[in-house]
Amino acid sequence: MKIPEILLVESLHRPGSLAKVLTAIGECGCVVEHLNAIKREQDKTIWEITLELDPGQYDAVGKAIDALPNARVIGHSDRVFARHEGGKIRMQSRVPLSSLQELRDVYTPGVARVCLAIQKDPALAARYTALPHTVAVITNGTAILGLGDIGPLAGLPVMEGKAALFAKLADLSAIPILIDEKDPAVLIDVISAIAPSFGAIQLEDIRAPECFEIERTLRARLDKPVLHDDQHGTAVVALAALISACKIVGRDLRQQVVGQVGLGAAGIGIVRLLMRYGVTAVFGADVNEGQLKMLEQMGGARSTLAELMQRCDVVVATTGRPGLIKPEMVRAGQMVFALSNPEPEIEPRFARERGAVFAADGRGINNVLGFPGLFRGALEAGAREFTDPMLFAAAEAIAACAPNGELVPDPLDRRVHDAVAAAVRSAAR
Amino acid sequence: MKIPEILLVESLHRPGSLAKVLTAIGECGCVVEHLNAIKREQDKTIWEITLELDPGQYDAVGKAIDALPNARVIGHSDRVFARHEGGKIRMQSRVPLSSLQELRDVYTPGVARVCLAIQKDPALAARYTALPHTVAVITNGTAILGLGDIGPLAGLPVMEGKAALFAKLADLSAIPILIDEKDPAVLIDVISAIAPSFGAIQLEDIRAPECFEIERTLRARLDKPVLHDDQHGTAVVALAALISACKIVGRDLRQQVVGQVGLGAAGIGIVRLLMRYGVTAVFGADVNEGQLKMLEQMGGARSTLAELMQRCDVVVATTGRPGLIKPEMVRAGQMVFALSNPEPEIEPRFARERGAVFAADGRGINNVLGFPGLFRGALEAGAREFTDPMLFAAAEAIAACAPNGELVPDPLDRRVHDAVAAAVRSAAR
Repeated sequence: MKIPEILLVESLHRPGSLAKVLTAIGECGCVVEHLNAIKREQDKTIWEITLELDPGQYDAVGKAIDALPNARVIGHSDRVFARHEGGKIRMQSRVPLSSLQELRDVYTPGVARVCLAIQKDPALAARYTALPHTVAVITNGTAILGLGDIGPLAGLPVMEGKAALFAKLADLSAIPILIDEKDPAVLIDVISAIAPSFGAIQLEDIRAPECFEIERTLRARLDKPVLHDDQHGTAVVALAALISACKIVGRDLRQQVVGQVGLGAAGIGIVRLLMRYGVTAVFGADVNEGQLKMLEQMGGARSTLAELMQRCDVVVATTGRPGLIKPEMVRAGQMVFALSNPEPEIEPRFARERGAVFAADGRGINNVLGFPGLFRGALEAGAREFTDPMLFAAAEAIAACAPNGELVPDPLDRRVHDAVAAAVRSAAR
Repeated sequence: MKIPEILLVESLHRPGSLAKVLTAIGECGCVVEHLNAIKREQDKTIWEITLELDPGQYDAVGKAIDALPNARVIGHSDRVFARHEGGKIRMQSRVPLSSLQELRDVYTPGVARVCLAIQKDPALAARYTALPHTVAVITNGTAILGLGDIGPLAGLPVMEGKAALFAKLADLSAIPILIDEKDPAVLIDVISAIAPSFGAIQLEDIRAPECFEIERTLRARLDKPVLHDDQHGTAVVALAALISACKIVGRDLRQQVVGQVGLGAAGIGIVRLLMRYGVTAVFGADVNEGQLKMLEQMGGARSTLAELMQRCDVVVATTGRPGLIKPEMVRAGQMVFALSNPEPEIEPRFARERGAVFAADGRGINNVLGFPGLFRGALEAGAREFTDPMLFAAAEAIAACAPNGELVPDPLDRRVHDAVAAAVRSAAR
């Protein structure tokens, strides 16, 4: 997996100077993700240049820049780490606690009345506690981003990131829960045991195939919304992108023959959601026999990659394998979504060169577009589970917020999340 | 258990009018806890009067007031409930998340670098995550306040109250965790499984005797601070009060013969801490044989209540049984701490009338004085457990903050918690 590296480069303040630096970077095969001038000195500028690199590329890029007469690498930025100092979330009091009387109301002895009222009528917990805006974000660390099984503690920055997004985009209190346990049965029991603490549960970065059993069992056992984001959150955003793309090219998504390349958590989630949405012809390719059987049980048909590329009007890929789809496999008139991040199965421009009517990678297809509104809508509706109509409503709301000609809207636009929450709430009722 | 009730009383705006209302309340045997004028009309005032009532007293008080010519009860306030609307805590983002670049730094793809750094060196989690300011507040709902086994959900308002206090008084992120499980072995396994999520663990309102085994096992198993607040938090504040009282009357606490009446979680915690602090002669009384054995294992001696009252220089009672200690049992020169809330084992004035040199009830002996600073100090020091010197340091810091002639300081004074945290941190190192 490529990870971002932020170089600090000092260059002479001359016409063409920065261009030479960027040319050297480009010749190393690296794309510039972001660029800031962070300091201007008498005759020099210091640039912060964000790249996504394979670990091995770092030295090559450094050498290429240092070989220039006008520039040199002076270090690398710790901006990402600086933004993580002290963690990304903090629990706050919603009560001022400024007087003894208030302390006696919200703590002992006053709190006893609220406790007794909830004991008598548990539904009152929805009114007098934070439960209806509290979501657990639970992982066992077995599939953190594309990094694999790095353990739950190393996954905590991702869970805190989700919690920060829940807070900012949907006013929800998300609680990272790390469980160092791989046995699905034990994991299910632990999550069930702590479930009373939360209004809803988001499962996160738990590897396939265990994630399927874990989510299915918890959904059946708990009377509150449970969602494995890697399956259904991703599927909702992918469905939104497909709806937008079909609108752009003037096709009916439900009439398309769809091929799903890669049947991990995301792929299975996408197939499931598309079929429930009304797509009838779905083919799937994967190297794992167990996943192919799961596809068939869902009503899809197994295929090789080559056949799938020939047969399908729409191809969605979520394999994590850069360059898996060769340009010559692309059929004229096809719509291609190569969603693996940060590197797609096929660069969209290569697919378009081979006659694809539409091609996109996974850059904008961010599940941040889905989960905040999905959970807020479900909690506001008092839903006991996420139903398919709620997921469809979220996808359609995301698609409806996309600017003309684009697949999805800006994930940091609060209005998008408000619209998703309203659509999900309405579908839940 | 008495619980607070807030009456709304309308009285004529005449000299002596409010006095008549309060006289009527006093004649019903009720103490006024708080009083506010909440509305002034042409000829009348509406008073909000906070009482602590047994359920049966409510009607009698209402009738007594309504029988007055100048006043009537017009309702009861929902101030306590109003202050609980929407819950008492909320998770917030510590990062602004206002730009795409920032999103890419604190979420994917940037977060991957922080994850990998923590995978390589788990100690970095203390720097780049919220872990070192995160405390779990865990209950199974079996001993909520004096209300008994009302279940974990009904206990949530207490846990949120603690979390709000942690946030306000010590800048800690406390997470209420409710576990609907009474079997100590299962509870221990569940708490161990989720322990990686937190920097420290506060066990709360778990009934005796299970609480002893649960805390002991978790302390041994986990490499982070674990504290059962009902035992040790209460003991720390009680020790602070005893230190202050001995200073006021000019005695050496360690030379006193101490009697502990009631050997539940609080009583056992107090005996344990006093003996570790250096008190050598400790007697204990309880109706439960198992608890008396536990006392003896700790080096204390069993006693009847009557003998204990004869023998001891200092008596501490934590039985939850109002009026258990009869005035005639009190010995001249004794120091009496009847700590059960809201009604003590003996009213301090009765004890003083019988010659006690010092007598107090539990009103000000609030464990809010202890837990915020205890946890902050332990976390700041990176301590792996709460040691006795840390508990002593907290008690001495609380006592040192008490104004002259008083047992303990104002629990809402941030400086007290800063002082406790500094003392605990220093003792941990």
